[in-house]
Amino acid sequence: MNQKPFQDYYPETFSYCYGCGRLNEHGLQIKSYWDGEETVCTFQPKPYHMAIPGYVYGGLIASLIDCHSTGTAAAAAYWAAGRPPGSDPPFRFLTGSLHVDYLRPTPIDAVLEVRARVKEIRGRKVVVTSTLSANGEICARGEVLAVQMPEHLSPDM
Amino acid sequence: MNQKPFQDYYPETFSYCYGCGRLNEHGLQIKSYWDGEETVCTFQPKPYHMAIPGYVYGGLIASLIDCHSTGTAAAAAYWAAGRPPGSDPPFRFLTGSLHVDYLRPTPIDAVLEVRARVKEIRGRKVVVTSTLSANGEICARGEVLAVQMPEHLSPDM
Repeated sequence: MNQKPFQDYYPETFSYCYGCGRLNEHGLQIKSYWDGEETVCTFQPKPYHMAIPGYVYGGLIASLIDCHSTGTAAAAAYWAAGRPPGSDPPFRFLTGSLHVDYLRPTPIDAVLEVRARVKEIRGRKVVVTSTLSANGEICARGEVLAVQMPEHLSPDM
Repeated sequence: MNQKPFQDYYPETFSYCYGCGRLNEHGLQIKSYWDGEETVCTFQPKPYHMAIPGYVYGGLIASLIDCHSTGTAAAAAYWAAGRPPGSDPPFRFLTGSLHVDYLRPTPIDAVLEVRARVKEIRGRKVVVTSTLSANGEICARGEVLAVQMPEHLSPDM
């Protein structure tokens, strides 16, 4: 893909998130892209991301769904505003609520793929639904209510 | 507290979870205890567990709620069966679903406290509700449907 990932448009202050910050050297540094009307992010778990031998722990799955969904919300907000991604003022979303249904154990030796869609945009809130798949099989479903970050949390804005 | 934490009763095979396994050297190694009818777990985030400067990323909160809740389910299952914790066959639960409401940003320089209660036990399923607090203020609420691990995932059982 020759797109720039959503997270690489975040201003520096917002780029230290453990899940998705490009500047967090300890973190997961996920990268999200448009794929038609969906967004997609792939991630290869480390062996220590296990729950039980052979399978991924639920917190990683929740983290991937969470950060990919708030990134999707930001990308959708630029699109809805008719603005190029990364233009000022920057859009950055926090998680209002997160729901994950774990449908089957997620193998740890696979590349995980999170695909998301915007279900609804209501003012400063965006609802994002998603699936997490491994080897072409859906292992989890997510729904995130993303809320545009309040100005008092945004020192650079 | 002079109790042994729930997670230290898990058999060795089940003790490598990134969130709660005592043998996962890269993981969070959370410890959960009874406190009356509630269960409690405290955790000090690392500086790199941030979302934005000063605040914890949502995936850590989800992970703490998830693993503390499945641990609570196991402890409650021993109690409901009238068996001492750790007695054979071991109880170990997986996450069927996870819901987290993020009520306010969670400060990263505080000790986080997760408190949980068993809402319902239905056969192999346990519903656990919880709060996550920092400095005495509730920052998130969780609900986990924990499901007893199927035998085919339990090589040692």
